[in-house]
Amino acid sequence: MKSANGINLTMLCDFYELTMGNGYFVSGMQDRMTYFDVFFREVPDGGGFAIAAGLEQIIDYVQNLHFDEEDIAYLRGRGIFDEEFLEYLRNFKFTGDIWAVPEGTPIFPREPVFTVRAPAIQAQLLETYLLLEFNHQSLIATKANRICRAADGRAVLEFGSRRAQGIAGAVTGARAAFIGGCAGTACTVSDQIYGVPAAGTMAHSWVQMFDTEYDAFVTYCKAYPTNAVLLVDTFNTLKSGIPNAIRAFNEVLKPMGITKCGIRLDSGDMAYLTQKARVMLDEAGWTDCTITVSNSLDERLITELFRQGAKIDAFGVGERLITSKSAPVFGGVYKLCAVEDGDGNIIPKIKVSENVGKITNPGFKKFYRFYNRETGMAEADYICMHDETVDDSQPLEICDPQARWKRKTMENFRAYEMMVPIFQNGELVYKLPTLKEIKTYCAYQVSTLWPEVKRFDYPHQYYVDLSPKLMALKDKMLSDAGHKAE
Amino acid sequence: MKSANGINLTMLCDFYELTMGNGYFVSGMQDRMTYFDVFFREVPDGGGFAIAAGLEQIIDYVQNLHFDEEDIAYLRGRGIFDEEFLEYLRNFKFTGDIWAVPEGTPIFPREPVFTVRAPAIQAQLLETYLLLEFNHQSLIATKANRICRAADGRAVLEFGSRRAQGIAGAVTGARAAFIGGCAGTACTVSDQIYGVPAAGTMAHSWVQMFDTEYDAFVTYCKAYPTNAVLLVDTFNTLKSGIPNAIRAFNEVLKPMGITKCGIRLDSGDMAYLTQKARVMLDEAGWTDCTITVSNSLDERLITELFRQGAKIDAFGVGERLITSKSAPVFGGVYKLCAVEDGDGNIIPKIKVSENVGKITNPGFKKFYRFYNRETGMAEADYICMHDETVDDSQPLEICDPQARWKRKTMENFRAYEMMVPIFQNGELVYKLPTLKEIKTYCAYQVSTLWPEVKRFDYPHQYYVDLSPKLMALKDKMLSDAGHKAE
Repeated sequence: MKSANGINLTMLCDFYELTMGNGYFVSGMQDRMTYFDVFFREVPDGGGFAIAAGLEQIIDYVQNLHFDEEDIAYLRGRGIFDEEFLEYLRNFKFTGDIWAVPEGTPIFPREPVFTVRAPAIQAQLLETYLLLEFNHQSLIATKANRICRAADGRAVLEFGSRRAQGIAGAVTGARAAFIGGCAGTACTVSDQIYGVPAAGTMAHSWVQMFDTEYDAFVTYCKAYPTNAVLLVDTFNTLKSGIPNAIRAFNEVLKPMGITKCGIRLDSGDMAYLTQKARVMLDEAGWTDCTITVSNSLDERLITELFRQGAKIDAFGVGERLITSKSAPVFGGVYKLCAVEDGDGNIIPKIKVSENVGKITNPGFKKFYRFYNRETGMAEADYICMHDETVDDSQPLEICDPQARWKRKTMENFRAYEMMVPIFQNGELVYKLPTLKEIKTYCAYQVSTLWPEVKRFDYPHQYYVDLSPKLMALKDKMLSDAGHKAE
Repeated sequence: MKSANGINLTMLCDFYELTMGNGYFVSGMQDRMTYFDVFFREVPDGGGFAIAAGLEQIIDYVQNLHFDEEDIAYLRGRGIFDEEFLEYLRNFKFTGDIWAVPEGTPIFPREPVFTVRAPAIQAQLLETYLLLEFNHQSLIATKANRICRAADGRAVLEFGSRRAQGIAGAVTGARAAFIGGCAGTACTVSDQIYGVPAAGTMAHSWVQMFDTEYDAFVTYCKAYPTNAVLLVDTFNTLKSGIPNAIRAFNEVLKPMGITKCGIRLDSGDMAYLTQKARVMLDEAGWTDCTITVSNSLDERLITELFRQGAKIDAFGVGERLITSKSAPVFGGVYKLCAVEDGDGNIIPKIKVSENVGKITNPGFKKFYRFYNRETGMAEADYICMHDETVDDSQPLEICDPQARWKRKTMENFRAYEMMVPIFQNGELVYKLPTLKEIKTYCAYQVSTLWPEVKRFDYPHQYYVDLSPKLMALKDKMLSDAGHKAE
């Protein structure tokens, strides 16, 4: 009967993480230090970049990692776990290190966005929840950013809770949408717990509850004179809804000297109706009355509506945002990239594949973003070994790892390390920004991307390069594995 | 910093439900009795039917409806709610009636699957969470049912947590997938709290942690001799993975007399590789070794794999199931269908629309499913007013409400009322089935649908008819609203 609300998130793991954990334990490998990278391979919707999100919830999860007595009892009941392993789980906590890109950062395929360094059992256990939270929130932040860019400065409100895929689909979904650029949400609890501004006025049922549409509007204006946004499409937008709205504004708001009000349309042809509505409202003297629309919108339809001259001040976006309907999966993966031997030496690991794009980058790594000092714009990302540094006072030649004949010399650039320490020896060392800071950081970072990277379709492929040292290591490992380098 | 875990679900509402609630309250309409229907308009993926799910979590939610002090404080802080309304919320609970179809029931467009009768504020407040839970779980149960039908009796395991849209996307998603037909899940906590059997053995990282693939396999077989399912595609499936698996089985399992074991493939061409693998395993004497595959599967690819002669015993299905990737939204809506006047008379309400498919069915209703007494097969659904009854000892002429020239006379049929009482006067009156009972009921109900309704593409449209009384009411209301009936 339990909903997925109030569960111990430590148990939200793939069962194989426990069977492997037990396997490492009984084989004496539990203290072996491992390195896992999180990265993704493809931007949803064919876009040029994604927005990283979910770190705050992942930090919360890592800090609360633990197995309750009932969890141990459940595992014991499965009859396959060693009793000493169960005893070990009783005192389980995270003691490792985590690096990650801050939330709101534009990210590109194949670069590491999290690196986890921890004993094998711990690192393995994080896989499912870390990916789930990162994948979900990055998916929605990325989609929201596309939709907000289409809306071109007008407010986009997230209205999709009822179509979300479960509780967190709605609640953390609204949070991620805010990071990506949305101005607010309909989801009350997301305001309460995260401070995503929640807004909303009426459904069709409000209008239907009254004898007439006019009564419904007047009653609403009296109850909320300073926030009267009337839904005008219950019967007939142009013949009934807007004339009744104007009458109600004249009746209730005008005598109070209020000029701020709004209408909302939830059906019909938005290009035609909003142009007509704007004229009717203006002619009646309600020039400050805003027009919000909210029917099956996404970045494509919004772009088209503007092209057709629609007069819209704000958008309510539902299912196509909260599920990222046109591309509902963010494909972040969690891959072993190194282990330490008994002497603390880092032994890089690689996952080979017949699919070139699926070959991993081996070793303990970090990455830089190069910003042009003159324009401030992001020019390229550069993945290197963790012990390498980039001297940005000197020119640097970089090359595309998939197409090595493409070379480019970086000059006059500033190199920023993009992953920052989050946990060190199990302790949180990261100062969490507020949600508004994340949103602002995201908007700023997106502004450093060239327009061609931000195209909705066929964007320019941003450079993500490998350092010569990393490339040499990868080549050698592929060659050792009996595979030719790509 | 809070994840969407352990929140008060009462606050998971659209903000307009609260502004309307306050509006009803200050207008003295809070006790007005209202009727809302939940129905949907389109089956995802163009299928012929959907599977209802989520009722158990909705019951839990309704039973726990309440506003905490911190919720009241948050609302007060918004500065728009009447103090008496906030006081009213302090003692808020559900006192109304709910009818619903049991979980696992095949459902069709436009028929009511929930009906809520409650005072306006209460009924309005349920909208978001009820739809969210019903939409999400029905989406996944429906998709799982399609995939399981494609798998044609072979086990389908839900493997998608890491790509789910948030916590509940994974956890209740696994529950819904089980209802729809999946044999189990990788999601441990779904086993712990719902009893969805969780399974899993190893990731590529297990193999990479050892010096050789063979060492990894032997160690695993020793740790889990009765559940040794080895992942064979880390390096090269046919040249390395399967030969090493056979060696490990021979080394560890054979001396123990164990013949049950398995391999899993997660990449490469599944049709080709599984046929080769089957021959290699059989020739080595491991005829009971099962083959599980798990790479980007859904009902389409599974159908194709069988057509190409693939030898597969079980499927692990990830992102395409847990997000219903090809159709990630279930469009259930919540619409006012009636109110009561002061004397308890039911006044039907209708939502007109220029789009015929969006016109609602007015009034307090129920619906029957007609099963043929000879074949046991479902022949049609029949929506009528709540005070109507169907006498299934007599022939009954039904007609398609969208195409009234299509008439059909039902004979020799048994009429079942499909919605059952869940709450009466706020009290739970429904005996909840176990999850396994729901799954069994679902499989049985799906078996009563003709194959043509179950086609993946262009299925036969199942009859969903309106009683003459309901049809006459709808016609009159549309005509009164100045619209011609369809």
